[in-house]
Amino acid sequence: MTPKRIEHIGIAVSNLDEAIRYWEDVMGLKCYNIEEVADQKVKTAFFKVGEVKIELLEPTSEESTIASFIEKRGQGVHHIAFAVENTDEALKDAQQKGVRLIDQTQRKGAEDLNIGFLHPKSTMGVLTEFCSESN
Amino acid sequence: MTPKRIEHIGIAVSNLDEAIRYWEDVMGLKCYNIEEVADQKVKTAFFKVGEVKIELLEPTSEESTIASFIEKRGQGVHHIAFAVENTDEALKDAQQKGVRLIDQTQRKGAEDLNIGFLHPKSTMGVLTEFCSESN
Repeated sequence: MTPKRIEHIGIAVSNLDEAIRYWEDVMGLKCYNIEEVADQKVKTAFFKVGEVKIELLEPTSEESTIASFIEKRGQGVHHIAFAVENTDEALKDAQQKGVRLIDQTQRKGAEDLNIGFLHPKSTMGVLTEFCSESN
Repeated sequence: MTPKRIEHIGIAVSNLDEAIRYWEDVMGLKCYNIEEVADQKVKTAFFKVGEVKIELLEPTSEESTIASFIEKRGQGVHHIAFAVENTDEALKDAQQKGVRLIDQTQRKGAEDLNIGFLHPKSTMGVLTEFCSESN
C-alpha cells in the first residue's frame, strides 16, 4: 500500500465561521463546500491548496471527538488523510504490519468518501486517515 | 498572498530511525534525504507523497523547540508549510492582516528554502510556515 497523495488535512476549530474568515482573508483560500457530517457530530468547511484539501472541523455536540480533542489539546491539526486505491485493503495492510486500527473496516465520511482511521498510538502521534472514492 | 501548494508537513518524532522505518515499511514511502539543521537543533528526514513532502523532525538537543513540543504535546504534526512566491512579502501581508509573527523576516531552513513562521496563537492553533525558493 502506497498512498497516492494527501487528500486532506483535518483541522479542529471551535468556531467554523471565524475559521473560514481566517482561511479566506489571511490565507487567501476560498471555501468551496460546507457540509454537516451527522454521525461524526461535526460541521466541515473545505478549501483547496494545490492538490490538497483543508478540512475545518467544528464540533456540533460536546460528544463529538473533535470537541474532546479541542478540550484536551486546543484547536489545531487533527488528522492527515491519505488517498489510497482501496480503504479496506489499506486498513488490512496496515493491521498486518502491526498498526492498531480505529476502524476495522471502511465507513462513509464527508464528500461521500470511504474512510478509515489508524490509531495515533501506532503512528507516532499522527492521527492517520485513509480514504478512497466510492466504487 | 495565496499559497500555491502545501510544501511540506512537519512531524515531530522522538527517534528518527524508528520513524523512518514506520513511514517506509507501513506507509510505503521512500526517504530521499536526511539533513541536520544545526541552528534549529533538529535532524530531518524527507519523504514525498504526491506534491507534498513529509518532514520528520528529531530534536538533536533538549533546547530544540521540537524537544519542548514533544515534551508538552507528544509526537505528532508540528507545522504545515505553504509554498509562496516570496516569504518576506507573505509574512508582511499576514502581519498587516493582524497575524502575530514568529519570524519578522525570512531565514534559511532545510533544503535551502527561505522560511518564516506565523504564531499559532494567531492561526487557530496551526503552526504555519511560509517557504519559497531562494532567488
